[in-house]
Amino acid sequence: MNRKLCFTLFTLSVLVLCAGLALATKDPELKQCKHQCRARQQYDEKQKEQCARTCEEYYKEKEQRERHREGESEEEKEWGGRHEWMNPGEPAEKHLRQCQRECDRQEEGGQQRALCRFRCQEKYRREKEGEGGQHNTQEEEEEEEGDEESSRVTSQHGRVAFLPKFTQRSKLLRGLEKYRLGILIANPQTFVTPTHLDADAVFFVSWGQGTITVIRENNRESYNVKRGDIIRVPSGNTFYVTNTDDDEKLYIVKFIKSINLPGQYEAFYGAGGENPESFLRAFSWEILESAFKTKRDSLERVLFQQDQGAMVKASKQQIRALSRSQEGPSIWPFAGESRGTFNLFGKRPSHSNNFGELFEADSNDFRPLEDLDITVSYANISKGAMAAPFYNSRSTKAAVVVAGDGYIEIACPHVSRSSSERRHQGSSTREEGSATYHKVSSRIRTDSAYIVPAGHPVVTVASQNNNLEVVCFEINAEGNIRFPLAGRNKIFKVMESEAKELAFNTRADEVERVFGNQDQDWFFKGPSRWHQQQQGRAYE
Amino acid sequence: MNRKLCFTLFTLSVLVLCAGLALATKDPELKQCKHQCRARQQYDEKQKEQCARTCEEYYKEKEQRERHREGESEEEKEWGGRHEWMNPGEPAEKHLRQCQRECDRQEEGGQQRALCRFRCQEKYRREKEGEGGQHNTQEEEEEEEGDEESSRVTSQHGRVAFLPKFTQRSKLLRGLEKYRLGILIANPQTFVTPTHLDADAVFFVSWGQGTITVIRENNRESYNVKRGDIIRVPSGNTFYVTNTDDDEKLYIVKFIKSINLPGQYEAFYGAGGENPESFLRAFSWEILESAFKTKRDSLERVLFQQDQGAMVKASKQQIRALSRSQEGPSIWPFAGESRGTFNLFGKRPSHSNNFGELFEADSNDFRPLEDLDITVSYANISKGAMAAPFYNSRSTKAAVVVAGDGYIEIACPHVSRSSSERRHQGSSTREEGSATYHKVSSRIRTDSAYIVPAGHPVVTVASQNNNLEVVCFEINAEGNIRFPLAGRNKIFKVMESEAKELAFNTRADEVERVFGNQDQDWFFKGPSRWHQQQQGRAYE
Amino acid sequence: MNRKLCFTLFTLSVLVLCAGLALATKDPELKQCKHQCRARQQYDEKQKEQCARTCEEYYKEKEQRERHREGESEEEKEWGGRHEWMNPGEPAEKHLRQCQRECDRQEEGGQQRALCRFRCQEKYRREKEGEGGQHNTQEEEEEEEGDEESSRVTSQHGRVAFLPKFTQRSKLLRGLEKYRLGILIANPQTFVTPTHLDADAVFFVSWGQGTITVIRENNRESYNVKRGDIIRVPSGNTFYVTNTDDDEKLYIVKFIKSINLPGQYEAFYGAGGENPESFLRAFSWEILESAFKTKRDSLERVLFQQDQGAMVKASKQQIRALSRSQEGPSIWPFAGESRGTFNLFGKRPSHSNNFGELFEADSNDFRPLEDLDITVSYANISKGAMAAPFYNSRSTKAAVVVAGDGYIEIACPHVSRSSSERRHQGSSTREEGSATYHKVSSRIRTDSAYIVPAGHPVVTVASQNNNLEVVCFEINAEGNIRFPLAGRNKIFKVMESEAKELAFNTRADEVERVFGNQDQDWFFKGPSRWHQQQQGRAYE
Repeated sequence: MNRKLCFTLFTLSVLVLCAGLALATKDPELKQCKHQCRARQQYDEKQKEQCARTCEEYYKEKEQRERHREGESEEEKEWGGRHEWMNPGEPAEKHLRQCQRECDRQEEGGQQRALCRFRCQEKYRREKEGEGGQHNTQEEEEEEEGDEESSRVTSQHGRVAFLPKFTQRSKLLRGLEKYRLGILIANPQTFVTPTHLDADAVFFVSWGQGTITVIRENNRESYNVKRGDIIRVPSGNTFYVTNTDDDEKLYIVKFIKSINLPGQYEAFYGAGGENPESFLRAFSWEILESAFKTKRDSLERVLFQQDQGAMVKASKQQIRALSRSQEGPSIWPFAGESRGTFNLFGKRPSHSNNFGELFEADSNDFRPLEDLDITVSYANISKGAMAAPFYNSRSTKAAVVVAGDGYIEIACPHVSRSSSERRHQGSSTREEGSATYHKVSSRIRTDSAYIVPAGHPVVTVASQNNNLEVVCFEINAEGNIRFPLAGRNKIFKVMESEAKELAFNTRADEVERVFGNQDQDWFFKGPSRWHQQQQGRAYE
Repeated sequence: MNRKLCFTLFTLSVLVLCAGLALATKDPELKQCKHQCRARQQYDEKQKEQCARTCEEYYKEKEQRERHREGESEEEKEWGGRHEWMNPGEPAEKHLRQCQRECDRQEEGGQQRALCRFRCQEKYRREKEGEGGQHNTQEEEEEEEGDEESSRVTSQHGRVAFLPKFTQRSKLLRGLEKYRLGILIANPQTFVTPTHLDADAVFFVSWGQGTITVIRENNRESYNVKRGDIIRVPSGNTFYVTNTDDDEKLYIVKFIKSINLPGQYEAFYGAGGENPESFLRAFSWEILESAFKTKRDSLERVLFQQDQGAMVKASKQQIRALSRSQEGPSIWPFAGESRGTFNLFGKRPSHSNNFGELFEADSNDFRPLEDLDITVSYANISKGAMAAPFYNSRSTKAAVVVAGDGYIEIACPHVSRSSSERRHQGSSTREEGSATYHKVSSRIRTDSAYIVPAGHPVVTVASQNNNLEVVCFEINAEGNIRFPLAGRNKIFKVMESEAKELAFNTRADEVERVFGNQDQDWFFKGPSRWHQQQQGRAYE
Repeated sequence: MNRKLCFTLFTLSVLVLCAGLALATKDPELKQCKHQCRARQQYDEKQKEQCARTCEEYYKEKEQRERHREGESEEEKEWGGRHEWMNPGEPAEKHLRQCQRECDRQEEGGQQRALCRFRCQEKYRREKEGEGGQHNTQEEEEEEEGDEESSRVTSQHGRVAFLPKFTQRSKLLRGLEKYRLGILIANPQTFVTPTHLDADAVFFVSWGQGTITVIRENNRESYNVKRGDIIRVPSGNTFYVTNTDDDEKLYIVKFIKSINLPGQYEAFYGAGGENPESFLRAFSWEILESAFKTKRDSLERVLFQQDQGAMVKASKQQIRALSRSQEGPSIWPFAGESRGTFNLFGKRPSHSNNFGELFEADSNDFRPLEDLDITVSYANISKGAMAAPFYNSRSTKAAVVVAGDGYIEIACPHVSRSSSERRHQGSSTREEGSATYHKVSSRIRTDSAYIVPAGHPVVTVASQNNNLEVVCFEINAEGNIRFPLAGRNKIFKVMESEAKELAFNTRADEVERVFGNQDQDWFFKGPSRWHQQQQGRAYE
């Protein structure tokens, strides 16, 4: 039921990714947080200031937290629900969601609430660190359910996290059962160990710069990547990533389509040692001796050295070698980068005005997207502006907010009041009576993820303070049309007068007058009441 | 298990569509019922008379029914089972099936039984009208099961109905889980409000004439349609339908392939008001004000006017404008109709003789069928004739009877006597001992629907009284071959004599003599004992 | 979870096919068993002797068994688990697995253990023959579970058997839910009755010679086939098979992709009588009389003669006619055989050295493989040798051992010790501590089947005594790359020195020295400790 689809959407979207961009400023230190604020080119001076203030407030909170850690309420133990962008298998994470709901309920101002949610995440991260023994229990439970406890990396040099399977959220998202969204964050001067997945992956570099190397059949291809680059890593191809920058973190949003089992995939480390373990060590020693024509003790000297995890600090020389290697043995006739990757921002935006711009790449722009049947797009909605209400005719949109904040509204058929009220208790959903369509709305901020099914009208609004930047993977892309509901090319424009009369049961000229005012396309000036709303109660 | 596949087939096929063609004559009045009898061009005089008599008897029954409504038996309250062509969410419908089973058990003559079944439907329709309060209960149950309560329209101006999901009937029809069959009936001079679906649809106009308008990207395409026209409406494309005729109803059989969730789809009304509600009303007012650059009171003047439902009466001028608009802004270089629609009867029948004719359209005839991978066909089996026993090599056939009556027999592997007898109690199934294949047979009449899986031999027989007209959607069409089992091109013809000897364990010339008599192809003279059967007990 | 994927793999692979090649020597007699040993061209003299000895020991065992049949232990009644290559619906088969496990536990020598397992199969076959009455009970149970009791043939002239549905083994093999593996064994001079399936099939002739006839649209195509031939039989195409040899059995490995229901398919016999029953007999007599324009008594003379089952003895003349018919009405411009079939051994091996050879056919070699998206390959690993450790980037490998014995090791992510120990009790799995990847290993011998999912590294080792011959169907073939982990073209070769340093945390030249020794490709000298292992405890 679409009713439930929308329900699912909602709960997916309100939850902030625990490992995400804004948060990533936590582990290094306040200085870097502020640095990032300054580095955002699309921010004006006032925004940069605000950003920096948020950094400060956040770290103040964090320190206080660390001083008073013992004071946890009992209530938290009863928290249920599931978690987002998880490091799976870690029970503490189930507390995060409820905690953040509490924030939404108690805190009035947007800034206050954001801080409250940051606090939740901070606490949640600590809880995880105190765990370990409970691990097995959950693991066995999940085994019973055909659940998973997927690949993950957490290290002092960065982290890999991902959203849980969509079907784990609800079997009603089973149209997306093959797909996953993930995120990779590598600290400056960090090397991420070679691995292959039993899954197709598309990487989008949302911040920073580095080198991504892919071992294709008998060839190595290295790509120097920067913000906006898209690269496809086919299933089974070994790849490794280097953050070549001295200061900035490297953020990569991963879109994954599984091969063996729907929505489940594994990372296979060939080159490794103890940690990450090389999968070669799973074979018997006599097999390895024969395969490599080498004595066991020599093999052991190589296969037991690595114990620093999947992310390791690289020296300046190593980084120089790894990033220079692109000029080396490339299989492409021309610059490898021009074929193996595609930069979204190297193309003219498909829509652009004062209120926002939309960049998109389909399989015509970047052939490797073809067999995955997806489009990658990037919307930058100016602060105080909104994207036109629209719907996709065939595609399902999986979106990740990479900067800024705002909110979305989705028109969902058949949300019945009783059931949804029962379920959304404490959340900010609203329904308007018993009508046929209901608004499902959610605040979104950096690292929020949300899903918009095909055919469902949606509107996205940036806050008054920050541009809202969203990366979208549109699944089932072939033949998709975006139908705008307002603006110069809205669908009502081409209806006959008689059809308008009959459909709206009013004079056609009145319909045309009302729907004909908006002279912009795709991005409009946003609602002015947005700020007041935040002070009061969101998303009426 | 194919055993159960066939079981499922059976129960699907015996149930008459409650909203269908013959029955649709009910709501207006007896006069129109008779008019339709006369208008059927394929009927001879005797058939027309018989048709008119059925109208009269049916309305006599109906009036009596209305006089004695109180006399319902208690037993009905215990009726179980599921319903066909339902207006979903209406519990009364579960009574229909059992009622009609009673008819099959008690009534001897075909005519009597048909009347009895009409009575069931009449009663069932009334039950529905008395409902409403029980709605929520069922709705919540269905919610638990991941069930659905899909789009529907019932109005004085027509109705939209559909078969329940095939997988709701049985998880063993899960090969068809993406597909639905539906029917749209619009009264004369009626406009069906613009809508888009999150599903691909193919419409087949089985009776009447009208205009179908589809809003593609920035364009409006209008098609004047008549009986036999096929049109594809891609997912997300807004469409509206006008019955432009002054007298005849417009009947459209809909074949639907869902996009978001298997077998589930929603109708999205953009242009509407209170009823049907415009999905625009789901958005916040400040969003709408910004999107349309228009004050709320102006928007309200447009978005609250419509309260007449999804089907509204159109004036003669409006109809003239809507049907003329085809000549207007068509995107096709030549007549829109020649490209956007395809008329099955404009093509020579692929098979034709005195006993019947078969019209078919595949993706070579009508390109838009290609990505749905279906063939649309129309068989008109003359009264007293039959179609050759045959099977499809790859396609599953989803069939809807649009006129006439008759019966089908399907050879199904492995129907075990015990289980099927237990289940089919009171129905007309027969098995012949413990053999490997069993006959699953069912009477079919106007608005029956049935499924024949790939590889399963089937035979279709028209009654002695009426031509049998069937619309088929053959799913999984690419590379499909129809293999006839009798007639000039039967599969036995090309076997070597030795293979026949060994397979049949008898002399090859005897095999050839027995199987070589039939000199017709695809349509044959039917069994002469058909009529007696009906008097006695059907389908032995 | 891949953890469970691997678990499933394991249990699938250790179980010997009960109806398979080596065993098939049972029913005729010892003489033929020995004959086959001599006929194997790839055997040297010592192997032939050993093979003949196994025949003798096996038949000695069998005779003893038959003398002391009453002495079954009570314990067997508690055996659980599921069975392989089953004639489904026969409960006795569930005993087989446990019996063979007992062998693995108790017997030390490889030869002893093989005999022990043969004994299990012998007993199991007898148990089946004593059954029948219990049949219905299981049948009904399976019906409840949506299970199946699929097509099978057991006759004095041969047999058809198949592996149970992969998803019946575990829902975690649901990526393979459409596929089945089967085997057809026809005795010399035997005709297998015409049938069509509601499934696409690819046949691989693994031993013997014969004729396969396929009835395509209005045409008969006959192919004389021999060892190594691949033929595709599309869904719904009637086919029949003749073993034209006077002495040798004909063995065909069947790869099947279902059409109607995932992993379920039926055989439809048109030409038949009582046994196999012709599906024509499911239709009413008056239907058949009309369809064939023939009186019932004539039809009965043809449709009731066959009572000898689906496999019948053919005379020399019949065989000559059936095998000669290839020259007759072929639709191919050139020799039918050159287009309708493809011989794997007619192509140069894609990899070959002293240690083994690999033959493979993809859709470029044999167009009919294209829409099934599979590759068929045949690896012949010399005795004492091994195939390189490697993984498939996209394909899942479904493998059947057609001759010889050896073992496999698969590196599986995340096998947790506790759960797997609990489950594999009594089997030969080993895990090495709590590391990230675990070895799943299994002895394989003639008729073993195993699955290797995409991305999972696997190594295959032949025994010291016999060449190991394996037929593989690689599913999801398009774009697949085999990545070798050792040998001249191993994936480590193309990594930069710096990447090796960082990944292995050791000097690059040491990595290169260790991984650079192996100068062969794909097939290597195997481990010398293999034989000792068998004496002790396998697969450490």
